[in-house]
Amino acid sequence: MMYFRVMSLPQDLSYNILAPGPVNLHPKVQEALSLPMIHHRTPEFDRILARVLQNLKEVFVTKEDVFVLTSTGSGGMEALLINTLNPGDEVLCVDSGKFGERWAEMASIFGAKTHLLKLEWGKAVQASQIKQALSENPKIKIVLTQACETSSGVFHPIKEIGELIHKHPDVLLLVDGITALGAMPLPMDEWHIDGLVGGSQKAFMLPTGLSLFSFSQKAWRKIENNPTPRFYFDVRKEKAANKKGETFFSSNVSLLRALDVVLDLIKEKGLNNHFAEIKKRADFTRHFSKKLGLSLYSESPSESLTALKVPEGIDSQKLREKLEKDHRITIMGGQDQAKGKIIRIGHMGHVLPEQMIDLMKKLGKVLFEMGYKATTDEFLENLEDEMLEWWGL
Amino acid sequence: MMYFRVMSLPQDLSYNILAPGPVNLHPKVQEALSLPMIHHRTPEFDRILARVLQNLKEVFVTKEDVFVLTSTGSGGMEALLINTLNPGDEVLCVDSGKFGERWAEMASIFGAKTHLLKLEWGKAVQASQIKQALSENPKIKIVLTQACETSSGVFHPIKEIGELIHKHPDVLLLVDGITALGAMPLPMDEWHIDGLVGGSQKAFMLPTGLSLFSFSQKAWRKIENNPTPRFYFDVRKEKAANKKGETFFSSNVSLLRALDVVLDLIKEKGLNNHFAEIKKRADFTRHFSKKLGLSLYSESPSESLTALKVPEGIDSQKLREKLEKDHRITIMGGQDQAKGKIIRIGHMGHVLPEQMIDLMKKLGKVLFEMGYKATTDEFLENLEDEMLEWWGL
Repeated sequence: MMYFRVMSLPQDLSYNILAPGPVNLHPKVQEALSLPMIHHRTPEFDRILARVLQNLKEVFVTKEDVFVLTSTGSGGMEALLINTLNPGDEVLCVDSGKFGERWAEMASIFGAKTHLLKLEWGKAVQASQIKQALSENPKIKIVLTQACETSSGVFHPIKEIGELIHKHPDVLLLVDGITALGAMPLPMDEWHIDGLVGGSQKAFMLPTGLSLFSFSQKAWRKIENNPTPRFYFDVRKEKAANKKGETFFSSNVSLLRALDVVLDLIKEKGLNNHFAEIKKRADFTRHFSKKLGLSLYSESPSESLTALKVPEGIDSQKLREKLEKDHRITIMGGQDQAKGKIIRIGHMGHVLPEQMIDLMKKLGKVLFEMGYKATTDEFLENLEDEMLEWWGL
Repeated sequence: MMYFRVMSLPQDLSYNILAPGPVNLHPKVQEALSLPMIHHRTPEFDRILARVLQNLKEVFVTKEDVFVLTSTGSGGMEALLINTLNPGDEVLCVDSGKFGERWAEMASIFGAKTHLLKLEWGKAVQASQIKQALSENPKIKIVLTQACETSSGVFHPIKEIGELIHKHPDVLLLVDGITALGAMPLPMDEWHIDGLVGGSQKAFMLPTGLSLFSFSQKAWRKIENNPTPRFYFDVRKEKAANKKGETFFSSNVSLLRALDVVLDLIKEKGLNNHFAEIKKRADFTRHFSKKLGLSLYSESPSESLTALKVPEGIDSQKLREKLEKDHRITIMGGQDQAKGKIIRIGHMGHVLPEQMIDLMKKLGKVLFEMGYKATTDEFLENLEDEMLEWWGL
């Protein structure tokens, strides 16, 4: 039987997450997480924190301070927003899916007058659309966008948007890079991003639990005197504590210790090689999923995940559930309006080529079992040969 | 040499945290933290979440829903506050130390008119003082207090305060139980607590990263229509998600899985036996630290930690640092006005009697080295015999 040919999975690979976060952990991360606790007010932890905050700058590609906070990515989004938003400010929000909606909801809750730039799911925003919105609404002070909209897999042209907003001295660009930062180039300073946030469970290959963010000098000028009530997410507190070599609140020692390991792994490999590995998984997925009858959902796909339309008559949610139940592989389905219509495959985390091949085979098998005629055993056997060759295995 | 008589520590006990959080991890917790990742949108995780939320009710001793959020304890304090505080509300804040100050600062930031009930550090509030403050300021809508003030080790009479506030239909009692909940009795419903928060790195014996909180029905009536802007800390979102068996934001899978293990350990042992173990460590510490010339700092000491004044002429901060450097034992010093004057020893977490004995011996040794004449080698040898006998070893 072909399904055991590629590999017999070691025990700890018997469950495989190929979702757009959380992701499979590197064994060295698992090891770091299992270490005995140390206190966060010790010289030993101080050294870890200093190293992490320094190495994060290389992933953000910034000279600015990077902050680490105990929260999910959404908490980091809130931190970007409420540190820079004056109640009553006009805000432009790129809404290209579920997380764009979240930005917009958040902005409205905190008192912004929110202009929506609503896009069809799967479409990327054009810098020219933002230019037009800014000229029609000259009071806009903040532009909110995802780098990658996780619900559709689209990547927005952040470089072009950054260049545009850089010309507006009173407008800030806040970027939710939760599913992009660390997975593909998103150089904060060079692209003139004023606020950028990442999440631990995405390209940083950790469990959920930390948000990572940074602000430009342009943003800091607004932060210092911003009257929006904030305590937990007040970055001024954290900045002052970091200057003394500590965190303001108790530190999540175990995740910071693991982040130290991940940043070391990335450094050792080289950031661009790290990006290239993720891109290769994306390329592989796009090339072979097409042969399974799946087509790209996004016109401008992110390297960090691929959203795919399933063949007519197949319920993507059922496909995803069957894949998990029968084969212990977790990918994601669609959310909200894309529910039942798409699957989303993540390319971040610790993934072996064999696991990518296994996913494609199992996807084909499940599709066949759900009534899709093309992916027969014979077809999949031939496909496997092609996939092995593609990876040079 | 006596210092090796009690035990040779296994490798993973070679560093010992006896601080008021974070604490030593149980080996089963370390194991749980090291497991491969699973996705938080899977039936497997759903079962863990359901079990954790159910078992937490037994520690809170409540019929109400308990919520778990990715944040430090301070984030949980903010959640209690901003879900119930209407901007402009008058608030009474018991300020008996650093964390009382934090409540007060937070309340003021979020628009409360804050009345301080300021106490000398080490003193517990009297219910009668709160009664008086409420009668002098009949517009007070919320009373904020710590159960245990971590900076001084004091435990406030929450039961009496709860009984008092229960008689005021328009006043809520919000209790920071971060260093008390799970370490000593704090039954939420019986004591009429309207909002209660705990932290993962204290009596829950986990790394920092989760806050745990719950609200009374009295509080919920205020939460539903409270206009205070909130997103990440909006408990209504989490309540709706929990009803569907999930968390609103990405779940910190690794900490929730470990929390599941801890709650199982507590359940197996029995909550009261778990409390008794912590109390026994507190009793031991108080009995033998006196013999080392250390005296209680708090008039109403919490079971979760003991704050001790050091002998004249000894700098407690240096003592704490020397203990860590020379013996790899972390306790805490004093904060702010108590800096240099006290040490704080935690009684929570996974602690063996041998580690408590070792701490006392090393404390005595370091005191002697710092110029305190009483704790000679001979004295400590005799003390060790007494300590072994105390534990029945």
